[in-house]
Amino acid sequence: MAVRAAVAGASGYAGGELLRLLLVHPEIEIGALTGNSNAGQRLGALQPHLFPLADRVLQETTAEILAGHDVVFLALPHGQSAAVAEQLGPEVLVVDMGADFRLKDAADWERFYGSPHAGTWPYGLPELPGARAALEGSKRIAVPGCYPTAVTLALVPAYTASLAENEAVVVAASGTSGAGKSPKTHLLGSEVMGSMSPYGVGGGHRHTPEMIQNLGAVADGPVTVSFTPTLAPMSRGILATCSAKAKPGVTAETVRAAYEKAYADEPFVRLLPEGQWPATASVHASNAVQVQVAYDAAAGRIIAVSAIDNLTKGTAGGAVQSMNIALGLDEATGLSTIGVAP
Amino acid sequence: MAVRAAVAGASGYAGGELLRLLLVHPEIEIGALTGNSNAGQRLGALQPHLFPLADRVLQETTAEILAGHDVVFLALPHGQSAAVAEQLGPEVLVVDMGADFRLKDAADWERFYGSPHAGTWPYGLPELPGARAALEGSKRIAVPGCYPTAVTLALVPAYTASLAENEAVVVAASGTSGAGKSPKTHLLGSEVMGSMSPYGVGGGHRHTPEMIQNLGAVADGPVTVSFTPTLAPMSRGILATCSAKAKPGVTAETVRAAYEKAYADEPFVRLLPEGQWPATASVHASNAVQVQVAYDAAAGRIIAVSAIDNLTKGTAGGAVQSMNIALGLDEATGLSTIGVAP
Amino acid sequence: MAVRAAVAGASGYAGGELLRLLLVHPEIEIGALTGNSNAGQRLGALQPHLFPLADRVLQETTAEILAGHDVVFLALPHGQSAAVAEQLGPEVLVVDMGADFRLKDAADWERFYGSPHAGTWPYGLPELPGARAALEGSKRIAVPGCYPTAVTLALVPAYTASLAENEAVVVAASGTSGAGKSPKTHLLGSEVMGSMSPYGVGGGHRHTPEMIQNLGAVADGPVTVSFTPTLAPMSRGILATCSAKAKPGVTAETVRAAYEKAYADEPFVRLLPEGQWPATASVHASNAVQVQVAYDAAAGRIIAVSAIDNLTKGTAGGAVQSMNIALGLDEATGLSTIGVAP
Amino acid sequence: MAVRAAVAGASGYAGGELLRLLLVHPEIEIGALTGNSNAGQRLGALQPHLFPLADRVLQETTAEILAGHDVVFLALPHGQSAAVAEQLGPEVLVVDMGADFRLKDAADWERFYGSPHAGTWPYGLPELPGARAALEGSKRIAVPGCYPTAVTLALVPAYTASLAENEAVVVAASGTSGAGKSPKTHLLGSEVMGSMSPYGVGGGHRHTPEMIQNLGAVADGPVTVSFTPTLAPMSRGILATCSAKAKPGVTAETVRAAYEKAYADEPFVRLLPEGQWPATASVHASNAVQVQVAYDAAAGRIIAVSAIDNLTKGTAGGAVQSMNIALGLDEATGLSTIGVAP
Repeated sequence: MAVRAAVAGASGYAGGELLRLLLVHPEIEIGALTGNSNAGQRLGALQPHLFPLADRVLQETTAEILAGHDVVFLALPHGQSAAVAEQLGPEVLVVDMGADFRLKDAADWERFYGSPHAGTWPYGLPELPGARAALEGSKRIAVPGCYPTAVTLALVPAYTASLAENEAVVVAASGTSGAGKSPKTHLLGSEVMGSMSPYGVGGGHRHTPEMIQNLGAVADGPVTVSFTPTLAPMSRGILATCSAKAKPGVTAETVRAAYEKAYADEPFVRLLPEGQWPATASVHASNAVQVQVAYDAAAGRIIAVSAIDNLTKGTAGGAVQSMNIALGLDEATGLSTIGVAP
Repeated sequence: MAVRAAVAGASGYAGGELLRLLLVHPEIEIGALTGNSNAGQRLGALQPHLFPLADRVLQETTAEILAGHDVVFLALPHGQSAAVAEQLGPEVLVVDMGADFRLKDAADWERFYGSPHAGTWPYGLPELPGARAALEGSKRIAVPGCYPTAVTLALVPAYTASLAENEAVVVAASGTSGAGKSPKTHLLGSEVMGSMSPYGVGGGHRHTPEMIQNLGAVADGPVTVSFTPTLAPMSRGILATCSAKAKPGVTAETVRAAYEKAYADEPFVRLLPEGQWPATASVHASNAVQVQVAYDAAAGRIIAVSAIDNLTKGTAGGAVQSMNIALGLDEATGLSTIGVAP
Repeated sequence: MAVRAAVAGASGYAGGELLRLLLVHPEIEIGALTGNSNAGQRLGALQPHLFPLADRVLQETTAEILAGHDVVFLALPHGQSAAVAEQLGPEVLVVDMGADFRLKDAADWERFYGSPHAGTWPYGLPELPGARAALEGSKRIAVPGCYPTAVTLALVPAYTASLAENEAVVVAASGTSGAGKSPKTHLLGSEVMGSMSPYGVGGGHRHTPEMIQNLGAVADGPVTVSFTPTLAPMSRGILATCSAKAKPGVTAETVRAAYEKAYADEPFVRLLPEGQWPATASVHASNAVQVQVAYDAAAGRIIAVSAIDNLTKGTAGGAVQSMNIALGLDEATGLSTIGVAP
Repeated sequence: MAVRAAVAGASGYAGGELLRLLLVHPEIEIGALTGNSNAGQRLGALQPHLFPLADRVLQETTAEILAGHDVVFLALPHGQSAAVAEQLGPEVLVVDMGADFRLKDAADWERFYGSPHAGTWPYGLPELPGARAALEGSKRIAVPGCYPTAVTLALVPAYTASLAENEAVVVAASGTSGAGKSPKTHLLGSEVMGSMSPYGVGGGHRHTPEMIQNLGAVADGPVTVSFTPTLAPMSRGILATCSAKAKPGVTAETVRAAYEKAYADEPFVRLLPEGQWPATASVHASNAVQVQVAYDAAAGRIIAVSAIDNLTKGTAGGAVQSMNIALGLDEATGLSTIGVAP
């Protein structure tokens, strides 16, 4: 019997990607689709690539419309999920693709988001130690941010194996879909094509505390993260270049061994063969993560690089992966590791 | 029992796209993969997006290696398919993704390709009148060119319904993957990003006789086609803008009706609602075709526009669609109408 | 003594490009810069590429502020130029980069723009027969649209020499800057990168009557134009692919000769050597126009292709070129034929 | 009397950009243009954007052809400059745009380039302390690498003012033109559009020792640099995100003050107003450098970001700037700080 899923925020990029995945998920039946300013419009006008749903009409985002589904995905602006979630019964699996329930520390939440903390839900990054157990049977899932997904998966093996000092430096490039579908001048094609630029420099990006939380959970103490996101002239993809000083005694071999061990059995993370480096094109539209690592002896640093599709593994694919675990399905159901290239 | 398929030319763009599709085809088991200059290399190095095939090694393209499969796909340079095909037995389904067996007129072939004509195979554009019957049970399939696929599907309804004069004008924009993976200066990223340019202007493009053949088969007489291809700064996609003078008595309504009738039951062709126009992004990585048509009363012309993914519906998806028919499978098996966007 | 120039609409793409050119124009001193919603802001925040003007502050667009300059450029939304222009004295050279004064036929204006016709000014396309004489000493200039600039220069030689039938078919690709800097969803980088799509199909684009006016002025009778604009994934550039049926007796040689004669002495139009085709990258940021032409004997059509930078020759460069003529300066003063590539 | 300049390597990207700049340089007369595989071809076919030079024909790169000029620019593959340079007399100003004469340490050269060290010439980064004095009247100039230009200008103020620990971490994104015009599969448009990927990770990039040399010259001791270059889907531009641990007592104010002091009088470096960050689009085709800096108190790091055009300030513009100094001209002669945007 199919699992009925509703999607709140079906007109945006995260919602659209989620529908792309749910359409081919063998256990899911797509139920209500809601928007806000777009309610009443045909999905064919808003998401013309979702051919099979072209004639579906968006409804208002209300608890009444979302009720009566087995799973409700919330692809809403930050701060709006809590109000909707509390109106959905405890028997409904609620998957929040926003930030509201990711952080454990209320003070962190308030400093970065400027509103009261709504709580903390099981964190939907199954590759983190302990995460799968917390997700199994859970009725609430907080889907990680796209940057934290890429950065955490790049650095966790180094911290789990105590190879790196607790000061990480991250520079990540993201495609423009990470900034959403609301029209803004600096996101116009004319502005972004041919240009690279940073933003939120110096610790201001809201994904920073989430990275610190994830890395601190596996390291031997608190980790600081210097995080600089950059906007790249592409629609999708995150390339995260992460580094940290190596602890004494670290060698290229110990680094390689730690990463091989960490990802030997992960279905979606692929540690590339030595000498091959991640490229966002290789994971385009896929739930796969490419990871590679090097030890720079001259600089004394471990350099770990990951590539994900920000909309798939970084958002909607990660959501489906965690949903699968929560529902007791095979974790990879309906998800692909095959990218679309070129 | 699975259908075993071999792919000759697995390191190129057409071969890679074909493998992306075959990996999710429920009836196919992927057999031998061959290259030429790349024989002996891991596929993971050549097609890093095809995660599940990363450890497969390319073999030489020989009849011995290709033999023993139920289906053999040839993604070879023009002129090389015939030699391979004749060494494969008549019981093997051979699907040629090159041009060798598309044209019926040997003189056309010789004029445009400069070599002896190898013959004519059933033409793998199922949407053409009579094509499905010719493909059913066939052991040989000539996959159409990418431009002819887009242009034929845009214009066939106008000619089938005798709405248009027999002189078509086509300007089409193609992504760079249509030009292949062999490195050439004019295809460098530095050259193509930010630039649009035409090529093969004035009737010189090899896809022109194929369009003329297709349109002439449904029109009330021979059709001339003025075809100008242009190279667009994107990896995938063809947007074909096609027009022809309307015959006397044609109205917007008769045009619309002809197109609605033509594509009412086609699984992969979607005539868009009035006012919405095709975009290549909407069919990215999908086997769908978006078509729209307008009647310009002031100019007296019918304007039909289609968008396809040149690698999917325009090459590898079209090949799988025709293979399905030849094998007696549901035509849509393993093929998607869902695009990857944004 | 320097010519003082004011720019109304300095925060948009046309205004920014104009300032880029005026900054290196040896006879111009840049005076007032105005915006509307942006008044009060530093230009450094709005046009960060205009380094030397970074500390200039935008003023309101009023006649008082624009008065007292020798030249006033209006880079305003369509329909707003007339009100401003009539408040500027007849001694001021007013260069309208909008559409308000381009069309001669009031009915055409009203049909395409839906407002009363404001009048007709000398048309700023010096390459048109008679245009230079009308511009010399003029105090009012209507700068052509970007598409009409490209299309007119591609086709005029064919019509001047009576080589083509009076039904032209044009498909043009434009960079996104042609659609302006106001944020709209369909212009987001996420939407345009990797996508080609048409718009205004079937005669609806406002530039169509302008093309008809230009071609009709040199042809031996009225010309119809079937015009399909497409949006291309690049910031700048127009590639116009234009064709018309050849009149009886036309040959490749007569076509070539007509184009060579037409552009032998034009400072900004370059008829490329035979076999080389225009590319928008080659005229990026330049006032040059690349033109090439072919005769397709099989289809019986003349194919003329032009490439311009929509913001330079297509808007701001064309404006400066015409201003130079009006002021009695050398037509090429401050303008470059050197593109920025790659 | 004009300075006559020859350009060896006129068919590549660096050579083409140099010619674009020399064409508008008021003191330069362009003399011999040479290539190797391209000798005998018209420049119009190879560099179609250089309209005024279209009919110039490339000659062979020999000392005979290059002799008799006041200035000879060498835009040759690494390792080829020395042989040519030694055949040119000491009275000729030789500007090497390759790497041959940049490094002072012969062991560094041999380790990274694998050939004998040819020597060290005055280093053409005028913004470095002492560099202008060394360039004045010099007859030999080693033009810096593009990455070292961006990184050095981002970090020098922090090291000059002793604000940063001697371990820098750099992640830089470059447009594809930095990889040259020789056709290679991984540089095809199909490969680079929509993709970000790193290369030379872990200390292997040849520009690393040059950065170390530059920073070490102003710091209070040797500096290590962890450098990760990434390839971005754009033709031009470098965005360098650089950071280092702050020394004790550093504050946002002391950092800002150091950068303001460093760049107050530099004609081409612009420290942006607080809150505004560099973008490569803003310096496209310009010799300007945008720099911004932040102090991340939580991570204890200084983050400095710079944007340059890799072909202009990063190569050909830097070459002209240094040539101007060597010839006793105003340093900014013929160079622009105005970018081409959008």
